[in-house]
Amino acid sequence: MKIECKHLYEDRQDVTVTSYILDDSPEMLNGKSRGGVVICPGGGYFNCSDREAEPIAMAFAAMGYHAFIVRYSVYTQGREPFPDLMKTLDIKKETVHPQPVIDLANAIVYIKSRKEEWNLDTDKIAICGFSAGGHNCAMYSVYWDKPLLLDALGVEKEKLKIAACILGYPLTDYVYLKEYIDKEANQLDRMFFYSSNRIYLGMEAEELTEEILTSVSPARLVDGNCPPMFIWGTSEDGLVSAVHSALMATALAKAKIPYEIHTFETGDHGFAMADWMTAAAMDQINPDASQWVELVKEWLKKRFMPELPEKSSFADIIPEEMNAQG
Amino acid sequence: MKIECKHLYEDRQDVTVTSYILDDSPEMLNGKSRGGVVICPGGGYFNCSDREAEPIAMAFAAMGYHAFIVRYSVYTQGREPFPDLMKTLDIKKETVHPQPVIDLANAIVYIKSRKEEWNLDTDKIAICGFSAGGHNCAMYSVYWDKPLLLDALGVEKEKLKIAACILGYPLTDYVYLKEYIDKEANQLDRMFFYSSNRIYLGMEAEELTEEILTSVSPARLVDGNCPPMFIWGTSEDGLVSAVHSALMATALAKAKIPYEIHTFETGDHGFAMADWMTAAAMDQINPDASQWVELVKEWLKKRFMPELPEKSSFADIIPEEMNAQG
Repeated sequence: MKIECKHLYEDRQDVTVTSYILDDSPEMLNGKSRGGVVICPGGGYFNCSDREAEPIAMAFAAMGYHAFIVRYSVYTQGREPFPDLMKTLDIKKETVHPQPVIDLANAIVYIKSRKEEWNLDTDKIAICGFSAGGHNCAMYSVYWDKPLLLDALGVEKEKLKIAACILGYPLTDYVYLKEYIDKEANQLDRMFFYSSNRIYLGMEAEELTEEILTSVSPARLVDGNCPPMFIWGTSEDGLVSAVHSALMATALAKAKIPYEIHTFETGDHGFAMADWMTAAAMDQINPDASQWVELVKEWLKKRFMPELPEKSSFADIIPEEMNAQG
Repeated sequence: MKIECKHLYEDRQDVTVTSYILDDSPEMLNGKSRGGVVICPGGGYFNCSDREAEPIAMAFAAMGYHAFIVRYSVYTQGREPFPDLMKTLDIKKETVHPQPVIDLANAIVYIKSRKEEWNLDTDKIAICGFSAGGHNCAMYSVYWDKPLLLDALGVEKEKLKIAACILGYPLTDYVYLKEYIDKEANQLDRMFFYSSNRIYLGMEAEELTEEILTSVSPARLVDGNCPPMFIWGTSEDGLVSAVHSALMATALAKAKIPYEIHTFETGDHGFAMADWMTAAAMDQINPDASQWVELVKEWLKKRFMPELPEKSSFADIIPEEMNAQG
């Protein structure tokens, strides 16, 4: 494995792609290219959580894919601790929407550009995001072929095309979120989303029209060009309601996009691997939810497994004349 | 993740430890140490197979453990292609028994020496070998506290102690192997083992007394100091008979060593992950056998999971005064 960290913009330290590139071997793929999974950690657009970064990359590397972690534009810019949500946060022009999804698009273009040296099959690229990172990936899935990204990057659609999208406990509908904040959320969650919306959308709450909220609501923007999706989460999610996943599934079903959804019954927001390697405490472990990893492995395999010949043989590694005797 | 390659001996290029060291984060273990898995690929003591190296390290890294690949002394010394088994192979003094198991012992001492900087829990080190690499790990498991290794390295037992041993389709009994070669093996397998025994034991076939064969037969050497073991393989293994696994399990059961054995019904020798990421062809994929990975994950977790507090909280990342309002 080779690990590289690339700064996507010369003048910024915070937006990076960390690439985990698997070795080739004559004993395995032997020069055949393999797929890749591009990961967007969550963190409410405040930060990019380590819990949804390297451990997730390891999981996909273990499945046989090159893995990539995109640290996209977030409020803390990887430099500061989580902000004090009691204070009104400054709006930072360089990190507000649509910058996070433009960062992901730039990451995809960069990753595809390394196709040859990395033996990467650019027709087998998935994106995978969690929570706000899931929102960013869902945004990408509905905007990859639209002017918002094509014009910002000045590239053809082919450069941005992806084969699949994986969403863990994503936020998908800001119109629903506004309703939820107004009617249901507790004070803590209301403060969280008030701040998150402010630093992500770069506007005061009263400026957020339904049109603006709809424009960042992937569940309302799905069309026939949206990639196949795998969505997972928990029905008890107390921060980002499972309604967001269900609305996304509804939109995919209506648009006849192939998808899977796995909403496990118990457990709160932000499980990551739902096992000890991403847990600071026991309540971040959930054997039911942890099944998403095996489920997504099988889902990806159906799309991404390289074609292989039927038979290998011990004879492959020994001289022909000996094999003839065998 | 940091990756390092260490040459265990200054004057040799072939014996190496490649270390895959996971990052720590305040959001996860936050300074707590984690266990490690030390991998010996197989290859009949001719080579160290790539199929049982990096992909296996990725699997254990995804489980949350630091992973280490030991390329121990083998005939090709990582330089030459697989040898022509039709020819009588030269005996190379520097690679014959007990050098491979001494290499593994040196690797363990080296890995333990990096304990502090790697946040490695040296009480949670497992070794994991496949085929001949499984033999090497089984040898280590019965010799770690014996003069063969203690004297060769000049160290105390504590430096060589390990917590668990994982064996994939291992060779464990050279006395049984001799019987098998004489009575059952086909010409191809007979040539393979004739050469393998020659280059591993460094003697002509007629010099191999029962005493010598017993001394390299872990299934005949298990005592109460053998670490807990996890053994897996397939009952149809046509190269290294499943008898080797069953004999090892018998010895462990008699010695009351905690162990698991999972022998799947179908499939030939050398499955590695038994999935496409270690397959050159479809016949190296076997969904039944691939379950060993999830099985060993649960088995290791029982021993190696760090202690965690009961509760985490969203409150951990936000200011106290705000949480009080929640």
